[in-house]
Amino acid sequence: MNVGSLFQPTSIAVVGASRSPEKIGHQVLVNLGAFDGTVYPVNPSAEGEILGREFVGSTAEIDDDVDLALVAVPAPVVPDVIEECAAAGIDAAVIYAGGFAEAGPEGEDRQNQIVETATDHEMAVLGPNTSGFVIPGDGLCGSFASGVEEVPAGGTCVIAQSGGVAHSLAFQTLREGRGLSAMVGLGNRATVGFPEAIAHFDDHEGTDAIVLHVEGTDRGRELLEASRTADTPVIAYKVGESDVGAFAESHTGALTGDHELYLAGFQQYGIPTVESTQELLDGAAVLGDGPRPSGPNVGVITAQAGPGIIIADRIQRSGGRLPELADATSEEIAAILPGITYAENPVDTGRPMPEFGDVVAAVAEDDAVDVVLVNELYEEALGLPVDRMRSLVETVEKPIVFATDGPPADFEADVAALRDLGIPVFHSPERAADVVSLLARYGALAGGSGGGRRGTETNDETAESTGVSTDV
Amino acid sequence: MNVGSLFQPTSIAVVGASRSPEKIGHQVLVNLGAFDGTVYPVNPSAEGEILGREFVGSTAEIDDDVDLALVAVPAPVVPDVIEECAAAGIDAAVIYAGGFAEAGPEGEDRQNQIVETATDHEMAVLGPNTSGFVIPGDGLCGSFASGVEEVPAGGTCVIAQSGGVAHSLAFQTLREGRGLSAMVGLGNRATVGFPEAIAHFDDHEGTDAIVLHVEGTDRGRELLEASRTADTPVIAYKVGESDVGAFAESHTGALTGDHELYLAGFQQYGIPTVESTQELLDGAAVLGDGPRPSGPNVGVITAQAGPGIIIADRIQRSGGRLPELADATSEEIAAILPGITYAENPVDTGRPMPEFGDVVAAVAEDDAVDVVLVNELYEEALGLPVDRMRSLVETVEKPIVFATDGPPADFEADVAALRDLGIPVFHSPERAADVVSLLARYGALAGGSGGGRRGTETNDETAESTGVSTDV
Repeated sequence: MNVGSLFQPTSIAVVGASRSPEKIGHQVLVNLGAFDGTVYPVNPSAEGEILGREFVGSTAEIDDDVDLALVAVPAPVVPDVIEECAAAGIDAAVIYAGGFAEAGPEGEDRQNQIVETATDHEMAVLGPNTSGFVIPGDGLCGSFASGVEEVPAGGTCVIAQSGGVAHSLAFQTLREGRGLSAMVGLGNRATVGFPEAIAHFDDHEGTDAIVLHVEGTDRGRELLEASRTADTPVIAYKVGESDVGAFAESHTGALTGDHELYLAGFQQYGIPTVESTQELLDGAAVLGDGPRPSGPNVGVITAQAGPGIIIADRIQRSGGRLPELADATSEEIAAILPGITYAENPVDTGRPMPEFGDVVAAVAEDDAVDVVLVNELYEEALGLPVDRMRSLVETVEKPIVFATDGPPADFEADVAALRDLGIPVFHSPERAADVVSLLARYGALAGGSGGGRRGTETNDETAESTGVSTDV
Repeated sequence: MNVGSLFQPTSIAVVGASRSPEKIGHQVLVNLGAFDGTVYPVNPSAEGEILGREFVGSTAEIDDDVDLALVAVPAPVVPDVIEECAAAGIDAAVIYAGGFAEAGPEGEDRQNQIVETATDHEMAVLGPNTSGFVIPGDGLCGSFASGVEEVPAGGTCVIAQSGGVAHSLAFQTLREGRGLSAMVGLGNRATVGFPEAIAHFDDHEGTDAIVLHVEGTDRGRELLEASRTADTPVIAYKVGESDVGAFAESHTGALTGDHELYLAGFQQYGIPTVESTQELLDGAAVLGDGPRPSGPNVGVITAQAGPGIIIADRIQRSGGRLPELADATSEEIAAILPGITYAENPVDTGRPMPEFGDVVAAVAEDDAVDVVLVNELYEEALGLPVDRMRSLVETVEKPIVFATDGPPADFEADVAALRDLGIPVFHSPERAADVVSLLARYGALAGGSGGGRRGTETNDETAESTGVSTDV
């Protein structure tokens, strides 16, 4: 199966292309505006041009090789269209329509037909029942939704079971100014599922982290294997802890599955999980951009105790550890700040002060610490310790995350300077604590390897022994 | 004790006023720039003017009545300064310095001295060990932190055990464009604690919701009583679930206390709790501005199933219920949208469509529903159902919350129009689900009263029987 034809096409046929702006077959064409390959609008009952391109009656009439068909026709017509595409030698298709495995016996029959055709011809079929995909770096928008074509190129690849969640994640990155390397809504997963998408984007040059939104799949073991095998960090968001079974099944034709079993599977295969779309994107941005942690030990330095307590509490509850600092570190901190408020971990300086950056550096340099979280509300007379952090990131290869806030106009330059150093900055103590907890869990699962491939054979055996391999 | 002198002063003495910009005694003076009462800079070793005001040698030398002393001197000097203030007839003081109950036996002695003086003279003393307070609507900034004077007036009153958390909350509202009616950092709570602050701001005209940040207090029962007695909705954020005891005690001189006991106490006294600063502020904004829910039953309408599953799952796990809709409602929805994707609660329309607003209205009008959550990703060709919501809010007195996202430039006008109707809009499914879950918990605790006072005698008995009244 040629997944490259799906995600890296040079020519595209839009089947069901339409002049009516409210139709998916119109919006898909509009969204292909930035695509620099060839686009064929296909519609047997239309003539003339649309958006500067000549209508074609069917895919069979196209002389050139077409890589990808974007199929924007109603469900009952889809099986025949897929047959025609296969006959025309098209390697890949996206099917937007719902009315398949998620919609009762008749829909299941339809889905079985397209799976059979696709399998026979080794077609990569995304969907049905999806809003499609977007590769911002290639100007390739294979989605009908309006606005996603505006999402800029970034390092995170979103692979979501739900097209709606994929789009929600895409708009969140647009709002945060981050962007995506790719956004894929899998929908009913005819022949392209999690394993194929993960493998493809693991090799994708623009991708530095992969995030998964998972409701449930009958290929759980392959999903876990693909995630573990990937060189790119993978983070998963498994939804459906409470009973949303009937509603979920009506969605992409999959039960949400045994939630605890999924979480155990991710744990055993070394894939950290999160509990919200925001954590998923924050975690990917931090893991993708910066140094990867080699363990779960967090050093916290705070200039205000209250937010420090929130942070310490939240990290401890979410899989991070606050290790004791080395005696040498405590002595160094005491020398920098005689009479410091609290010199254990978290280190509490009581207030921002000129020596604050040196205290951060002392903690960051402690071998007991894998990840550093700094909390400091901005004070105008001091600013944030940008210069000290600049020298620190040159000598210490560990993730450093800042939680800070202040009047936006005053401190934005300092925040931008920290971000330029590769230090992520968040504006609430919980959001910073959540991303650091994710880093700690990643570090724990990485087992001290310092990043990169995390899989080990023992993981595999554990999975077998708990039955996850067959049940998930 | 005259708490009004603290929070509504007409004249203020700044003790420890300083010309050095890095000193608290300077920043406090700067931050009083918008205060329209009289300000006296007090410093025995300074002469001449500062910021256009004449230095005074001591509070005893001031002829006029002074309501409030902002005490910006180091801890060892504070007990004498408080004595002088009391002798000069000053009714209230804020003490910024640390080095009291949170700092060992010597500090405890100091705090005991000031509490004794304050009690003898019925002085309202905020702190020590606090960054102070701000009343944006009165242009009154009694904090030394830079930037908080920019926070605009809003409806939420923040009462935080930690001055740092108070400021973090204030900056978050500034960032969100919401503002505060008041921000109070209690610190070590010499004579002004949660009960006094809650009672004062319950009567404050600009306050429509009160939020509490609680680490631990030896006046837990009074805190609960004051919260229950308040006409204003109160929401609490209790921190310290995991063991942060030693660090917390080093902070404001209080152990974080038995977390579960606190949560049970809040539950029994009808005070909903949250788990992050963002939930606290979102909840206050929604409860303060809009109709109050009369029960825990949430009707969810979604145009995309994936985010709908996230929302349904999260609400069910956080104290909300998704009730069955009335037969008449289901019939109405089926008439509006024949062949709808999923007509149970959550109602899933499969895509945005012109009739989406009518479906929302049908659910909102169902008597089984106390709170309405709408999830709809923006599609340019349709927009959000602003007109239908405009007529709906005129006939249905229930909280309606939107989760939506889209390319900011395109859909901001629709979002602003919804907000103008009193419909809060959030941009991630989880954030909307969290605030709706808070509304559901509030509705459950309100016990069908439809808002206003929520206390009942039975709550009191329950608290007695579990021993919360004595232990918290």
